[in-house]
Amino acid sequence: MKNGSPRERFEPVWWESGGVGYIDQRRLPVEVVRTRATTVDEVVEAIASLAVRGAPCIGIFGAYGIVLARELCSSDAEFALAAERIKTARPTAVNLAWAVERVLALERDAYLSEAEAIHDEQRAVDRAIGERGADLIPDGANVLTHCNTGPLATGGAGTALGVIIAAQRMGKRLHVYVDETRPLLQGARLTTFELLAAGVPATLIVDGAAAATIRAKRIACAIVGADRIALNGDTANKIGTYGVAIAAAHHGIPFYVAAPRSTIDFSLANGEGMAIEERAPDEVRSFAGARSAPSEIDAYNPAFDVTPGHLIAGIVTEYGVARPPYAESLPELAYRPRFPFAHARQFRP
Amino acid sequence: MKNGSPRERFEPVWWESGGVGYIDQRRLPVEVVRTRATTVDEVVEAIASLAVRGAPCIGIFGAYGIVLARELCSSDAEFALAAERIKTARPTAVNLAWAVERVLALERDAYLSEAEAIHDEQRAVDRAIGERGADLIPDGANVLTHCNTGPLATGGAGTALGVIIAAQRMGKRLHVYVDETRPLLQGARLTTFELLAAGVPATLIVDGAAAATIRAKRIACAIVGADRIALNGDTANKIGTYGVAIAAAHHGIPFYVAAPRSTIDFSLANGEGMAIEERAPDEVRSFAGARSAPSEIDAYNPAFDVTPGHLIAGIVTEYGVARPPYAESLPELAYRPRFPFAHARQFRP
Repeated sequence: MKNGSPRERFEPVWWESGGVGYIDQRRLPVEVVRTRATTVDEVVEAIASLAVRGAPCIGIFGAYGIVLARELCSSDAEFALAAERIKTARPTAVNLAWAVERVLALERDAYLSEAEAIHDEQRAVDRAIGERGADLIPDGANVLTHCNTGPLATGGAGTALGVIIAAQRMGKRLHVYVDETRPLLQGARLTTFELLAAGVPATLIVDGAAAATIRAKRIACAIVGADRIALNGDTANKIGTYGVAIAAAHHGIPFYVAAPRSTIDFSLANGEGMAIEERAPDEVRSFAGARSAPSEIDAYNPAFDVTPGHLIAGIVTEYGVARPPYAESLPELAYRPRFPFAHARQFRP
Repeated sequence: MKNGSPRERFEPVWWESGGVGYIDQRRLPVEVVRTRATTVDEVVEAIASLAVRGAPCIGIFGAYGIVLARELCSSDAEFALAAERIKTARPTAVNLAWAVERVLALERDAYLSEAEAIHDEQRAVDRAIGERGADLIPDGANVLTHCNTGPLATGGAGTALGVIIAAQRMGKRLHVYVDETRPLLQGARLTTFELLAAGVPATLIVDGAAAATIRAKRIACAIVGADRIALNGDTANKIGTYGVAIAAAHHGIPFYVAAPRSTIDFSLANGEGMAIEERAPDEVRSFAGARSAPSEIDAYNPAFDVTPGHLIAGIVTEYGVARPPYAESLPELAYRPRFPFAHARQFRP
């Protein structure tokens, strides 16, 4: 490891000889369980079950998974099948396919160094996102966020949560209101865990309380991450994001998205073509293992929703804050040079 | 019992000699536990803990509680204290204070018959609300609702859920999307239970999915209950209601409230003066004993929010559908004769 022990930094994923290490995020915050995937099945299962989650993080994990698959597979045909399974383990976040394809474009003996480069670049990118985004957060602000977008979600400093933590490190006084983010409670379980660790004052709310909290607590802005962004700014993100964006618009406060360039799908003009993963109904019929509804009731469980670009005041990437109209500000990001790790160090606090 | 055994009808509350019977709604849908409160402490605790809940239902339960308190208290001073404790066991729903005061206005030997009259009137009122509101629901509609407003919530046929069930009984084809309604999951636990019992097609969603579901499932309208309505239509209802109303407005679909006249606070010009109950943070950090967040994280847990009248397309009471401007349509309801039980029978299906 280049940046100290993962055990001290709650590094969500890492490479080990013969396997891809990860924290099983399903067990947080009750316990920090570190384990590793040693087969292609285990790589796919860790992504599909959300043991490893967060759009940038599953990209890094998928890249390491390709390294593992190449070691394990005895034929090119077997490897091609394994790579396809990893690339499509979850459908909505574009980072996974992007990272897998980036590794596959190289010669076999460069896979590991490329996966590590993706990981290192994410750390640099996250620092830049935090730096560029922090200016958006007013001093003294109450800020609302949804789902988890901190270090556990990216393998770096985080996206939206990275912006919030960077703003606090700049000396701004902040208070973060965290949506619990049903059904899998990433806000309650992971974002609170990370904010407590970072020493940022925070309060947990149920998702239904977001609109009332914006009004009662005079929320200054909302900021979230993204799983896929179309060129007009339409943004797929964790289910519940769209409702927060509508509530922010209703109250006249800015709603921001923070994500690396790798989350932008430069092939999509708008959000209509985005594949939205639907997950098992039992995630909705139960709560943290406790049954909450009759087993015979139907449940609809989209894992993501699409927030239209016109509800988004700014999209923070490592290149700065893109503003509407996104159809003009986003496409040109495709032509920027890859964010250089050496250059990025200047953003390190 | 005048209307058959409560054990067959899932009657939520009833009078017994020496106690007030109730279904402990905290245990639903896992098991139907019938028990009774035999002391003033138990009456207050059943209301405060939401073992008995739903604005009209806690009004009826509180009225029976006054009968019990009068039997148990040996002095007028002790009784006055007990009555005040019952009346204020929860602060937001106006029906509780309304029902308690209605009983207390009479002579002691008329308490039980008045409590029973309140209960009977609620049944008649609910039938009228269902009948009047059903016309608002288009045939073939997907309908969104929040929290629980069925028989368990009122002691009658229900308010918003009563409207939905009445519309289906009129032959309309409907599909109901039910917000699970965190933190106490009345939608997941109770509304699904009642819709399954009524044979109405229904699908459960997490609260955060409401906005995406309105769009994806082409929801035709949303309908909810109320705990207190001001004269300009501002409506206190279960936390999460306000966000649904904003999302409905954003999508241009009508958002309706269904409630008996006893829910209107004729002393309040608008919602600013409404007392909003804040409940224990542990309700947000867990459910049914399953912990979902670090115990050291702060949590904000308002039990209700206030939806401004301007977001509400119509308020269904037993007198018909009040339309904006509510400052004109609601105050005159104060002068209508009390809804007569005999008259109401004509609405019985």
